[in-house]
Amino acid sequence: MRIVIVGAGAAGLTLASNIRKKDKKTEIIVFTKHNEIAYAPCAIPLVLGGCIESFDDIIMHDADYYQKKNIQIHLSTKVTSVDSANKSITYDEEEKTKTLTYDKLVLATGSDIITPEFDIDDMNNIYPLTTITDGKNIQKSIENKKEIIFISNLSIGIESAYELAKKEYNVTFLEQSPNILPLFLDEEISQKLVELNKGVNFETNAHIKCITTNDSKKEIHYNDKIISADVIILPNIKVPSTTLARQAGCEIGDFAVKINEYLETSVEDIYAIGDCVEVKSHITDTQTYSPAATTAVRQAMILAENITGNKITFNPVVNTVVSQVGNYYYASSGITESFANMIGMPVVTQTMDTKQKARYYPENNNLYIKMICKCDGTIVGCQMISKCDLSSKIDVLSFVITENLKCDELVQKEFSYTPSLASIINPLIKISMEISKKIG
Amino acid sequence: MRIVIVGAGAAGLTLASNIRKKDKKTEIIVFTKHNEIAYAPCAIPLVLGGCIESFDDIIMHDADYYQKKNIQIHLSTKVTSVDSANKSITYDEEEKTKTLTYDKLVLATGSDIITPEFDIDDMNNIYPLTTITDGKNIQKSIENKKEIIFISNLSIGIESAYELAKKEYNVTFLEQSPNILPLFLDEEISQKLVELNKGVNFETNAHIKCITTNDSKKEIHYNDKIISADVIILPNIKVPSTTLARQAGCEIGDFAVKINEYLETSVEDIYAIGDCVEVKSHITDTQTYSPAATTAVRQAMILAENITGNKITFNPVVNTVVSQVGNYYYASSGITESFANMIGMPVVTQTMDTKQKARYYPENNNLYIKMICKCDGTIVGCQMISKCDLSSKIDVLSFVITENLKCDELVQKEFSYTPSLASIINPLIKISMEISKKIG
Repeated sequence: MRIVIVGAGAAGLTLASNIRKKDKKTEIIVFTKHNEIAYAPCAIPLVLGGCIESFDDIIMHDADYYQKKNIQIHLSTKVTSVDSANKSITYDEEEKTKTLTYDKLVLATGSDIITPEFDIDDMNNIYPLTTITDGKNIQKSIENKKEIIFISNLSIGIESAYELAKKEYNVTFLEQSPNILPLFLDEEISQKLVELNKGVNFETNAHIKCITTNDSKKEIHYNDKIISADVIILPNIKVPSTTLARQAGCEIGDFAVKINEYLETSVEDIYAIGDCVEVKSHITDTQTYSPAATTAVRQAMILAENITGNKITFNPVVNTVVSQVGNYYYASSGITESFANMIGMPVVTQTMDTKQKARYYPENNNLYIKMICKCDGTIVGCQMISKCDLSSKIDVLSFVITENLKCDELVQKEFSYTPSLASIINPLIKISMEISKKIG
Repeated sequence: MRIVIVGAGAAGLTLASNIRKKDKKTEIIVFTKHNEIAYAPCAIPLVLGGCIESFDDIIMHDADYYQKKNIQIHLSTKVTSVDSANKSITYDEEEKTKTLTYDKLVLATGSDIITPEFDIDDMNNIYPLTTITDGKNIQKSIENKKEIIFISNLSIGIESAYELAKKEYNVTFLEQSPNILPLFLDEEISQKLVELNKGVNFETNAHIKCITTNDSKKEIHYNDKIISADVIILPNIKVPSTTLARQAGCEIGDFAVKINEYLETSVEDIYAIGDCVEVKSHITDTQTYSPAATTAVRQAMILAENITGNKITFNPVVNTVVSQVGNYYYASSGITESFANMIGMPVVTQTMDTKQKARYYPENNNLYIKMICKCDGTIVGCQMISKCDLSSKIDVLSFVITENLKCDELVQKEFSYTPSLASIINPLIKISMEISKKIG
């Protein structure tokens, strides 16, 4: 059997490795238009900030590593078409057009970054921030510079802005939305994050008109102002890369390639995973776009099981995230209150400013929580800010939301306790009981 | 309405406060034979070790605080009998015997510590370690001393042993079982904890014959050896305090006072919570004894709801614990492999030595995990050791075990990821997939 995978990001390579772990014989061939593979994009901000020494450190493997596992990788190779009737693909390599048949084809083509709508007179010292190559370019360009401006960026941009501020760059962040990280945090929570976490100058509701060049400086014209900088980082809003899927005849949904719960497209023997597909939201039961590395990897692991003979479903998503910004972490799972309002879902919310550890414990961390429930008490969202490890704390919420628990049921759940890590009544129980009172 | 609560530990006082929050009028009267209330027993090791400055810091409230909330507390007052037919109790106060009627009576009488079976010639410099008074006595007695021996202690003892070792006491721990913390950790995991975590000299399988006195030194005779010390800390094995419940006619189970899922005893209008009751195990569906502060507080919160008009069940327990010992934490939820063997439950297990964070992240922590599944893949236990915060990590497992998830279902669950806190494939997914392979 020959499995052809188009795309060598988190989705494509995790799939290749996991199929190989379960099946030593199947031929696995991966195509990528990129030259660099198997690195951790989420770690780019940490290299820019110097916490991780070099971009080489965040590259896990090279093509040879995969070759030794009998996984063929075609670098810098664009797959141009799919003939699903004859089960073959066409690709360009070394200036030749070649054809290859497949038994199973997996589209893990990822996403592209939207081209900004505003005019830019000269791309010098202006960079996107998505790939390791972008990271390297930025690292080089900011040497001996001082002023950096980020425009409306998602996690990778906010994280990088704070990391560079730690290195004493003068960092400004122009956000086109009313608040930063609007996908994950409600306005008052993102404001809290910005208030607590000094170092970056934020301007929200910034409507960029154009970027011009004045000697060695770049000038951003927005609202009725002009701000200048040495280096500008562009927005990184993702759009699914669906060209090949469309060409192959796969059904495309409202957002991206349509898949069923087994990660199959509408065309036989063609699967799709990662940033190029749309997924179902656990909370709204409607299609949504969730271009997260965790989603891509989970899909890859499940598809590896299914391709090798299991039958596991990829379940609707709750969008559980955690991110380090400056000296704080934020975390989010489920939907925000503003999203609930947008879709007309009535919700009850509660915020709480509490402590991570037993309150008498020295060196304690504040823990800010917002919880969002439907009117019947079902927990549909949670946001947190703290200096403490929020990763497993939000994982607990991820389970709570996935299991459709109601706020008054949390008191029945067992949480661990020791004074140096947690209080005897878990903050999630405390906030749930407050919400329960409102629901009555 | 008058609610009488016997016992002012975590169970009794949490109940009193939570009823008051929901009901401003009901008369609430609490009796305790002790003189000190509302402190955190779990923090005693941290005061002994000096991380928390004084025993005063771990006392939350005094009787006045409760008085102001219109909760009457009778300190140093023993309730001697219950007349359930006439709904009254008898108690001794200021050398007088008094009677008081109740509408609802809650027995939160806690537990007593088993008297050691071995002979002790002189109790000088020998202490139990359960109450804040014990803590104060120990703190005073070890001044200017050097050698301390703990005998077969549970979490509070192990934690204290390591805390005192940090202060350069010479600390030995004699454990009568084949491994320390046998309720929570399997032998190889507790051995790992001891290996990693220097500072305390452990001897397992230590069968104590007697303790004698030689000048100012105490000598413990065990197996064929004698070991001497300045101060000895006795075992703190708890037995439920059921005298009053028996006397009131409440049904007693195999271990302690029997209650139903609403925390009602067999006698009308008498409830029981905390260390004096037995609970059901989620995993074995049989009765068990779980004298944990978290269980007591959860029962108190649920009973407060039920007494004020709700109807919430106290669900079977999975025994989720976390504890700091020296520079490490251990955590456990569900049953151990050795317990499974003891009750004849066939299980499949897996251990994993992995990292907390993305593997390229500097300052990473090792994370040791053992997972225990039934032969159908249902996860029934998990143990962890690490220097990192294990509290929420084991809380995730607590949910996993409570929801009867199977190991191959964990790959479907959403975990958060950021390189400085977690790896992209959560260790729980990694270990689950390893177990799945064994189950096939």
